[in-house]
Amino acid sequence: MRNVTPETLTETLLGLSGPDTDPRLQEVLGSLVRHLHAFAKEVGLTHAEWRKGLELLTRAGEMTDDERNEFVLFSDVLGLSSLVDMINSPSGCTSSSVLGPFHILGAPDLPVGGDMIGENPGPQVVVEGVVRDTHGDPIEGAQIELWQTADNGLYSNQDPKQPEYNLRISMATGADGRYALSTIRPAPYMVPTDGPVGDLLNATGRDAWRPSHLHFIIRAQGYRTLVTEVFPSDDPYLDADAVFGVRRDLVMEYRPGDRAALAADIAARDRLNDSFSKVDFDFILPRQAA
Amino acid sequence: MRNVTPETLTETLLGLSGPDTDPRLQEVLGSLVRHLHAFAKEVGLTHAEWRKGLELLTRAGEMTDDERNEFVLFSDVLGLSSLVDMINSPSGCTSSSVLGPFHILGAPDLPVGGDMIGENPGPQVVVEGVVRDTHGDPIEGAQIELWQTADNGLYSNQDPKQPEYNLRISMATGADGRYALSTIRPAPYMVPTDGPVGDLLNATGRDAWRPSHLHFIIRAQGYRTLVTEVFPSDDPYLDADAVFGVRRDLVMEYRPGDRAALAADIAARDRLNDSFSKVDFDFILPRQAA
Repeated sequence: MRNVTPETLTETLLGLSGPDTDPRLQEVLGSLVRHLHAFAKEVGLTHAEWRKGLELLTRAGEMTDDERNEFVLFSDVLGLSSLVDMINSPSGCTSSSVLGPFHILGAPDLPVGGDMIGENPGPQVVVEGVVRDTHGDPIEGAQIELWQTADNGLYSNQDPKQPEYNLRISMATGADGRYALSTIRPAPYMVPTDGPVGDLLNATGRDAWRPSHLHFIIRAQGYRTLVTEVFPSDDPYLDADAVFGVRRDLVMEYRPGDRAALAADIAARDRLNDSFSKVDFDFILPRQAA
Repeated sequence: MRNVTPETLTETLLGLSGPDTDPRLQEVLGSLVRHLHAFAKEVGLTHAEWRKGLELLTRAGEMTDDERNEFVLFSDVLGLSSLVDMINSPSGCTSSSVLGPFHILGAPDLPVGGDMIGENPGPQVVVEGVVRDTHGDPIEGAQIELWQTADNGLYSNQDPKQPEYNLRISMATGADGRYALSTIRPAPYMVPTDGPVGDLLNATGRDAWRPSHLHFIIRAQGYRTLVTEVFPSDDPYLDADAVFGVRRDLVMEYRPGDRAALAADIAARDRLNDSFSKVDFDFILPRQAA
């Protein structure tokens, strides 16, 4: 190893792995180390730049706690999170998209057609659709979790003024695979910019905004769990999402609502204001690999 | 951006940088993001593997404090630190090598020929040499910092039983460029294995050992500062350094000492035990770029 050079270092290092190394670990580590070394050589990384990178990681560690993970945010704004979503999304199904840091367990159950507006101000909307398999058949008993920001762009766990579990529900589809609820429009918001990720966005003149969106997790027996987001077509940040979560098939339309056309099970039907919107959005789930 | 695909994501992201972005930042970020994305695509990184990677970074953050930086250790064992050293080492000069986490400021001055053994047990050695420029001319007034482990493999700031600044000195070369001192042989040691770096070494069956070494920082006006390490040729871990710090030109020889042949300024000359060794090691410093 005393003869190691920039040309031989990478394979020398990878050659140190013992015979009991898990083959997949060796494959992932091998690719990671090869790209890491190629990066350093390609740009001629200086000691000062290396120190700067380590300082960013160290600061990210200092900002990370149970409520916030700056490493996930780095992965998000560097497109890695969305890339992992894309390369693991089977074709012919609804795309997956970033989970984000605001999901919490234990959202209350709401029956199909139930109301999530409660006391929340903001433009009202009825969202409904069908959870289907890849043959177009409805999936009965799919468990949907939905969460979103209030009109101020904050999630309930960011905003002490909101009730616990505000704008978060769980819903099981019936035999027709249908889900439906009344809610308010979610609002765009900025990813946190008070840490090293914010410094990077600032240094590159990038937006910290995310377009407004509804988060969904959909689980059904025999199907792969879908973690995704749905974005309104009229959002000003639709083509500037700081974390690259938008996919063409995840765009929904706010259409003018028609009270008379609403299904009978929409609980808030007679309380909705006249300017309410309607969204129809179906999901397609892939079968679990055998 | 709603049309982004694994094929277009990378350049879409890099295209978001504003016109005021520092060109070097854009170059480094561009290479980093291209390699990061290529890595994820090449191995088909799964969500579970992505979460595992973020968990490693999060744990590294939790283990990092003023005394220990797990991110530096990751950089070390993944060969990045040594690669940065190698690509920034001008040819025809002494190679640089990792600084490591045990350097502290304020080591006491020692005159040329002074003794650093004090009360330290262990095999004794006289180390001397000349600091030269690339023409072979001695550099007067070069400031040398030297630090090393005690015979137990611990640095003074790891070991409450050692006096402050034990086995750490600063020395200025005279007109002849010469440095000289008596000390003990440093000992091999393991990098810390109680964190995620240790888990990685363990999972790949890699050694955590570093060969014994003397750390040097050499500063001289008009020259580039040299941060390096010097390793004895008989160390059992010379070809298995966990952090890849060894270079062929950084290997020194312990030769049998000859008291009668020692220079008059070796202060410990008459106190050294009979089995002391001698090391001759010169350094070559590159001129500071204009």
